[in-house]
Amino acid sequence: MSENNKSRTDVNKLGEFGLIDHLTGQFPLYNMSSVKGIGDDAAVISNDKESFTLVSTDMLVEGIHFDLAYTPLKHLGYKAVVVNLSDIYAMNGHPQQITVSIAISNRYSVEALEELYEGIKAACAYYKVDLVGGDTTSSLKGLVISITAIGTSTAEKVVYRHGARPGDLICVSGDLGSAFLGLQLLEREKQIWLEHPEVQPKLDDQQYVIGRQLKPEARRDMIYQFEKAELIPTSMIDISDGLASEIMHICKNSNVGALIEETGVPIKNESQLLALEFNLDPITCALSGGEDYELLFTIDPADEEKVKYMADVYIMGEIKDPSDGIKLLSKGGKLHTIKAQGWKHF
Amino acid sequence: MSENNKSRTDVNKLGEFGLIDHLTGQFPLYNMSSVKGIGDDAAVISNDKESFTLVSTDMLVEGIHFDLAYTPLKHLGYKAVVVNLSDIYAMNGHPQQITVSIAISNRYSVEALEELYEGIKAACAYYKVDLVGGDTTSSLKGLVISITAIGTSTAEKVVYRHGARPGDLICVSGDLGSAFLGLQLLEREKQIWLEHPEVQPKLDDQQYVIGRQLKPEARRDMIYQFEKAELIPTSMIDISDGLASEIMHICKNSNVGALIEETGVPIKNESQLLALEFNLDPITCALSGGEDYELLFTIDPADEEKVKYMADVYIMGEIKDPSDGIKLLSKGGKLHTIKAQGWKHF
Repeated sequence: MSENNKSRTDVNKLGEFGLIDHLTGQFPLYNMSSVKGIGDDAAVISNDKESFTLVSTDMLVEGIHFDLAYTPLKHLGYKAVVVNLSDIYAMNGHPQQITVSIAISNRYSVEALEELYEGIKAACAYYKVDLVGGDTTSSLKGLVISITAIGTSTAEKVVYRHGARPGDLICVSGDLGSAFLGLQLLEREKQIWLEHPEVQPKLDDQQYVIGRQLKPEARRDMIYQFEKAELIPTSMIDISDGLASEIMHICKNSNVGALIEETGVPIKNESQLLALEFNLDPITCALSGGEDYELLFTIDPADEEKVKYMADVYIMGEIKDPSDGIKLLSKGGKLHTIKAQGWKHF
Repeated sequence: MSENNKSRTDVNKLGEFGLIDHLTGQFPLYNMSSVKGIGDDAAVISNDKESFTLVSTDMLVEGIHFDLAYTPLKHLGYKAVVVNLSDIYAMNGHPQQITVSIAISNRYSVEALEELYEGIKAACAYYKVDLVGGDTTSSLKGLVISITAIGTSTAEKVVYRHGARPGDLICVSGDLGSAFLGLQLLEREKQIWLEHPEVQPKLDDQQYVIGRQLKPEARRDMIYQFEKAELIPTSMIDISDGLASEIMHICKNSNVGALIEETGVPIKNESQLLALEFNLDPITCALSGGEDYELLFTIDPADEEKVKYMADVYIMGEIKDPSDGIKLLSKGGKLHTIKAQGWKHF
């Protein structure tokens, strides 16, 4: 019945990834079946020499990860599933099952939870994954959702963050920065609404960016495209924290450098225009925005032809030697060092 | 940007299990690999015809499931792992991996989290399971821990809640009610301490019940005993919500009744005495206390000899026809209908 009086280090000092490393770095692995533990999009567990089970988990907290002022509960349920499936696709795997645990305050009604689970169910139906377990409990404040996704891959097909080699091409599926701009827009309209409740939000002409924020999709289609083209990326990660943070994960895990060309980074015209409206540089939105849930992957240059014929895939740079660092070649021809500016929740 | 004005049903109306049924009952299963979804201690996923993966998940919320006034963080970390492993053992499986997600308020220091993870690490070392993933994020209030345990079993060995048949013997590993009494004791001493901070808590002579509450163990030894004796229970569940709630789960899932004899229910002498000190009936503590994490299982009567030679196993009743209901034969020879009085968090 006592609080200890030891020294106190604030968690902000370490940041999210530093904290995870600090807390989990000393854990040994006891089981041969634990092929890959912490440090990739999903854990990899071998069932036998060939067949692998993938496991990924995410926790979403009201007031930290989502704001119910502009997030319909159905969309929230859908997105909570999608962000976890995205991690399984990022390992070149197929999600099969999810578990969903929620903690709720007494502010939530059965009807509100029905909406949440309608979104979860819609995502399960679309991605053909099964809800097989979970937990439902009370919280002291707000809603907490913890989802675990389980998928399959094989020893040959599984793709890690650590396989990129100098000379590999850096690719991305779809466009970047839109989800972040959608969030800026929703936050701005929320402020206007809080100050002038009689003003209707002007969102009709920005359905794309808002959709990217509120109802993102995971790139299952890419996994099928890879299979069809008989392509196995050398490394892959999904873009949840922004391009800068993700390319740094790939480079750190693969012990390589990278050069990304600004002209190659796919940013939609409407996102470019909206960025300017917010006095933001579009490339900054792509680098640091996050929540795009696109796949960032690297391929052997011998596979370039295969990628060229893929819909919605953009080659935007090259893996370099580690001594070259992680750089952006701007439209103006200048080299900038890329720094991680992903989401910091602490 | 609007709250809906539909009717509002309080979640208390449905209760925890009713709410889960209500929210998840309409989810179809799309994948052949989903052998067993919601409704047992763990989900069962087939890797092939023989090899099964088990998945179980639990969420623990500060102020609901634990009170840091008397729960050392190291013990909390240990217990959070153990309660999940217990679910895997309850399927006659072997846990191999866990993922740990936490949400923390800024009240938590790095040192506090180190203590929590020391407990998690100690449990991983003792049970030889690997921490392979997780998530670390902020919360608006308190600590939330969500753990998923992953284990293995086989098509022959996996044990469900639904396999009990009339005539089967009802068995339990270890004693019941102690963890609940440990909690009563800690709560009483907390109240005394809050009112008279100068009074030292008197807990030295109650190490057993306090240990059962703060540092429970999962019954891995039972799974090894089953293997050695070549015994496969017909049904099994772990006692997290109390004997009454768990036997009702087995009966509901197996479509059977049950008769439990009070004289057969294992309750330690020290727990009997402590119950009387709290003016509680010891059998009520065993039926409704919860958090014992013992295994409740049923066996074919032909296997009775095998169980008789097992350490720490008690036969306390018999599975009956569904029309017989779920009854307790008291020491006085009276029949009482057993009602679920497990933990209600809502």
